[in-house]
Amino acid sequence: MKLKVGILGATGAVGQKFVRLLENHPWFEISALAASSRSAGKAYHDAAHWIESTPIPIGISEMIVQEARPGLDCDFVFSGLDSSVAGDIESDFATAGYPVISNAKNFRMEADVPLIIPEVNPDHLILIERQKWEGGGYIVTNPNCATVGLTLALKPIEDAFGIEAVSVVTLQALSGAGYPGVSSLDSLGNVVPFISGEEDKLATEPLKLLGDVSEDGIADRSFPISAQCTRVPVMDGHLECVSVKLRRKGTAKQLEKVLRDFQSPDLVRDLPSSPEQAILVLDEEDGPQPRKHVLTGGGMTVTIGRIRPCEILDVKMVVLSHNTIRGAAGGAILNAELLASKGLIPHREELASSA
Amino acid sequence: MKLKVGILGATGAVGQKFVRLLENHPWFEISALAASSRSAGKAYHDAAHWIESTPIPIGISEMIVQEARPGLDCDFVFSGLDSSVAGDIESDFATAGYPVISNAKNFRMEADVPLIIPEVNPDHLILIERQKWEGGGYIVTNPNCATVGLTLALKPIEDAFGIEAVSVVTLQALSGAGYPGVSSLDSLGNVVPFISGEEDKLATEPLKLLGDVSEDGIADRSFPISAQCTRVPVMDGHLECVSVKLRRKGTAKQLEKVLRDFQSPDLVRDLPSSPEQAILVLDEEDGPQPRKHVLTGGGMTVTIGRIRPCEILDVKMVVLSHNTIRGAAGGAILNAELLASKGLIPHREELASSA
Amino acid sequence: MKLKVGILGATGAVGQKFVRLLENHPWFEISALAASSRSAGKAYHDAAHWIESTPIPIGISEMIVQEARPGLDCDFVFSGLDSSVAGDIESDFATAGYPVISNAKNFRMEADVPLIIPEVNPDHLILIERQKWEGGGYIVTNPNCATVGLTLALKPIEDAFGIEAVSVVTLQALSGAGYPGVSSLDSLGNVVPFISGEEDKLATEPLKLLGDVSEDGIADRSFPISAQCTRVPVMDGHLECVSVKLRRKGTAKQLEKVLRDFQSPDLVRDLPSSPEQAILVLDEEDGPQPRKHVLTGGGMTVTIGRIRPCEILDVKMVVLSHNTIRGAAGGAILNAELLASKGLIPHREELASSA
Amino acid sequence: MKLKVGILGATGAVGQKFVRLLENHPWFEISALAASSRSAGKAYHDAAHWIESTPIPIGISEMIVQEARPGLDCDFVFSGLDSSVAGDIESDFATAGYPVISNAKNFRMEADVPLIIPEVNPDHLILIERQKWEGGGYIVTNPNCATVGLTLALKPIEDAFGIEAVSVVTLQALSGAGYPGVSSLDSLGNVVPFISGEEDKLATEPLKLLGDVSEDGIADRSFPISAQCTRVPVMDGHLECVSVKLRRKGTAKQLEKVLRDFQSPDLVRDLPSSPEQAILVLDEEDGPQPRKHVLTGGGMTVTIGRIRPCEILDVKMVVLSHNTIRGAAGGAILNAELLASKGLIPHREELASSA
Repeated sequence: MKLKVGILGATGAVGQKFVRLLENHPWFEISALAASSRSAGKAYHDAAHWIESTPIPIGISEMIVQEARPGLDCDFVFSGLDSSVAGDIESDFATAGYPVISNAKNFRMEADVPLIIPEVNPDHLILIERQKWEGGGYIVTNPNCATVGLTLALKPIEDAFGIEAVSVVTLQALSGAGYPGVSSLDSLGNVVPFISGEEDKLATEPLKLLGDVSEDGIADRSFPISAQCTRVPVMDGHLECVSVKLRRKGTAKQLEKVLRDFQSPDLVRDLPSSPEQAILVLDEEDGPQPRKHVLTGGGMTVTIGRIRPCEILDVKMVVLSHNTIRGAAGGAILNAELLASKGLIPHREELASSA
Repeated sequence: MKLKVGILGATGAVGQKFVRLLENHPWFEISALAASSRSAGKAYHDAAHWIESTPIPIGISEMIVQEARPGLDCDFVFSGLDSSVAGDIESDFATAGYPVISNAKNFRMEADVPLIIPEVNPDHLILIERQKWEGGGYIVTNPNCATVGLTLALKPIEDAFGIEAVSVVTLQALSGAGYPGVSSLDSLGNVVPFISGEEDKLATEPLKLLGDVSEDGIADRSFPISAQCTRVPVMDGHLECVSVKLRRKGTAKQLEKVLRDFQSPDLVRDLPSSPEQAILVLDEEDGPQPRKHVLTGGGMTVTIGRIRPCEILDVKMVVLSHNTIRGAAGGAILNAELLASKGLIPHREELASSA
Repeated sequence: MKLKVGILGATGAVGQKFVRLLENHPWFEISALAASSRSAGKAYHDAAHWIESTPIPIGISEMIVQEARPGLDCDFVFSGLDSSVAGDIESDFATAGYPVISNAKNFRMEADVPLIIPEVNPDHLILIERQKWEGGGYIVTNPNCATVGLTLALKPIEDAFGIEAVSVVTLQALSGAGYPGVSSLDSLGNVVPFISGEEDKLATEPLKLLGDVSEDGIADRSFPISAQCTRVPVMDGHLECVSVKLRRKGTAKQLEKVLRDFQSPDLVRDLPSSPEQAILVLDEEDGPQPRKHVLTGGGMTVTIGRIRPCEILDVKMVVLSHNTIRGAAGGAILNAELLASKGLIPHREELASSA
Repeated sequence: MKLKVGILGATGAVGQKFVRLLENHPWFEISALAASSRSAGKAYHDAAHWIESTPIPIGISEMIVQEARPGLDCDFVFSGLDSSVAGDIESDFATAGYPVISNAKNFRMEADVPLIIPEVNPDHLILIERQKWEGGGYIVTNPNCATVGLTLALKPIEDAFGIEAVSVVTLQALSGAGYPGVSSLDSLGNVVPFISGEEDKLATEPLKLLGDVSEDGIADRSFPISAQCTRVPVMDGHLECVSVKLRRKGTAKQLEKVLRDFQSPDLVRDLPSSPEQAILVLDEEDGPQPRKHVLTGGGMTVTIGRIRPCEILDVKMVVLSHNTIRGAAGGAILNAELLASKGLIPHREELASSA
């Protein structure tokens, strides 16, 4: 029997991506769509300005959108809520006993909230036990859309060489700003070299993700990350120009080998949304490119190219990840699969009957 | 009496920009258009696939294109030739006694050839005296389209603080690749994180430009420059994310003041193509942007924004310059104006009569 | 002494274009900027999200925005107001005695309000006399941004051959939707084949513009116009594929000659914003193109190409006009110049002193 | 046992689409890749500048490209050849006994060559019998990429009402021009209102496709089609604004119903590449849009919207089809499936053994 899923913020850009990626999911099925009171009561196809390139899945299109508050008939919720409201609503759901798998930024850096990329830090999930919501729910978060590609690329490097410093310039896609997001007048033939709040997230989230977990919580890494974020006229795919200073000496060739050899942990590799390779190193000299590589591994693989010596730090490279799949809805779904595989998402009826 | 100009490579993208920028020039007038034998003999409007957004200037449109070899009726030549042929043809013209003001890369790094940005290193022009072309001509070059913005931004910093290292990631415009250049299938909604040969130029040309000149030639600077170049779907304007490590301590505020206070040398400021400000520091938090700022100062001003501390080096910022005006034809024209103002471009009749 | 201008809706996209086009205007100078109460009291550079590609003119940048209601210190107003508020506010200004030169749609089709393209129907201005605003003001409008190119192209055809039917498909620029207007997610690599209300305007406004004026008002033309409007990822320039059925026989060659021979009326040709040619027929087989031709005549010239026989109606062609210059602010300014040249915009002090 | 397929012009844009669409095809498998002598002898991944957004299929990537001349080991060939060479090479293959399923224009309008859209005119295949190639091969063609969407939309209308005239303006995607095709400098933020030869094809091919077949060949329809073709910055998907004059009266509502009710012939509906619906009428008022609808039915469904009365002809609408799938490789594959289902593509071994 599939787990029943509620989607908070179902009408927004991330919410729509949840809807599309969950079509035909082997473990999860959507049982509730929730959004603001403005959308509540409407059929989903009326409430959502659908921006995906395939039609609204049958069965979802006519589903009535509910208000985003506890009481939804589901075993857990995905949150694609805007950060302006995510804090309160996600708290309410956790308090009401729901597992909340959130893409919002609000709780990411909280000491007791796991910030998870399954291939990077599945052990951080034990933080859940430290959460003290009244009704027994919990919150698990996935990182910012630009953080995830960077951190996946850094993970094998940190393990093999140790990292002393990271410099990153991002070229981020329009879909990262949601809908309507960036005006076409600011985007056609243009670059905007500023994304509010983004550089801070890039400078801090990887340090928590790569941190060590113990009974006392997470000990964040402490190396400096210098980030410069830009918005480019690309639909999907955040491209990142990354330079890394290593703690232990290593050549570009050695670092490339480490990236090529990276394997997801066993428990992750078998999850339904896990790509064959979490990291794919490209052979071509002019990749990765958003248009050609962003859908590698169904949008869940991070592609890397141009690994070479850096004249200032040690090694530089180009990293690409899909910002709304791996960097948002797909990442959250993989987190939920990890939780489900560990038995951490019970059917609510079981809960009820066992109560 | 205006100086008569020949344009080598007149039908190409850079050649067209020369044609457009020289319309109504107070000191120069086009007397010869030259290109490959394929174009020779045709009227300019038939030979050139005109890509500028204003019409071919009257008087130029019907001019007959000649073959690019010495004998052109002009006092000096601008070269917008492709590097595959620029070496031989420019040598031929210098040998035949013509001043050659070149945008091509072939001679830029030659020890006796000045690589000039008038606001940065006008004193390097004395290298001309070291050139030994039979007929008494000479070659002066301007830097790569991505080098010029970076170097103009670095000049006041080098003077005030000294530079220890520079990291730069570029987001370069399509017009930098010429016509037809980049295929629309590689550019629509895409980024290509590789431009052949570009990173090398960025790593070396600024060191010559900022070098000290003496009787023995140029002593290049020697700090490391790490460059990562990308092509983005922008028409005109190379954007550069730059981090700088300083030799003498300085804050972002101090560095910003140095950039704001930068003044072109007096002899440059009065040249016809010199912008009011070579460097303009923007106040907005999300600039510079190609669409909004690339034409500042008629495309001759470098705009800079987001000057702030860097977590790894010392200060970072965003720099924008117009790649086909300041970075190509406009830069070459400013070089020619500098030469002319110093009496280094005689009228050929005078030469002939004085001989 | 220049006439003093107030701009209603000064912070919007059309308002900004008024500001830019009026910089250094020989007859008019901006004395008041007005917008909604949200903007009132702020300096213009704070109130407006400036989207032009040249800086806010000096002197305007620090001007304080006022609320858009009568009392502004100016001789007349330009209205770039949104149609949701233009009706009331423009009425208020006319009632208070101001000439109102409006780009809004609200009054265009009113029987007593002239809808003017100076080269097409300057005689329609006599409608002003029929307006009965208490304070003696009046309203003059210019047509929809897609109407103006079509109508200018049709005018010489109507005069020479008579028109029986027109079929038009438009490819309209993003700037026509204002700012923020179209989302980048709807525009990157996409076409939207629907623009709300636009097809109706195209089907009706040309009939009034080409109508005959008499003491009884305008007798609209009555031929059918079938319009299909699309939005394409172009910054400026509405391209229109037009087929025309003629009342009196005429070949494509004859029609082309009529378009080439078109001359603006004498009283219009000398106005400051009047382009050398209101219509320019291109020779190239692949024009007009927005990027190459939209700025012809400073954005005031309509360019036409590909004039050829139509297999169904009689002749077809491609028409391009600048939607925010000729099709909005520039068109309104030309209307104001026409009014001023006829003495229809008195200095308000004169009015006061004569009272 | 699958039929063995050779692909002529395998390295080009259409050839690549054949390669991608044939991955995992239930009936066909690629046994030979052929291209010009420049590519012959190279591994496919070296010979082709791969532009698809998914990787080259395993097994194909290392296949050695052969020269495009008879002798290829395959049961039939798809031709994605450029028209400059398609005539001779396709003749050679037909003469050598191969069925040639061609996307090239060269033979489309030949009296004895079927021009086929399976849902429109499968009965035209009997023309094959009239072909007299020495070795017993034959040529079957699919229409131009812009013709196919228009003709599929017209088919039910012709059947129900009869067509008297058609006016069409196209907004065509960049991929229709192949690779490198249109320069990015001509495409970014621009429209080119001219595509060489395209309007002629649109004016003639539908008349053959909708024609009646008899023992004497095809009797083409004879109604006039007026076409205006433009190139817009869209990756995939030709959008067409179509107006139709009907022979027998019909309202927009009636015409919409006829389009909604359209059913592919039974023998076509079961083919592997046949979409569930050949025509899908959209409900939204602003569709179809390339980004949202072009992949409907895997790129094989034609989507139609905005069906409404036309002020001049009778009914107008907007039609979208995928130009490189339905309009090129996918259309050719559907043709091959139709031929195979009728037993018209024998295994060559059978031929040999039966000989």
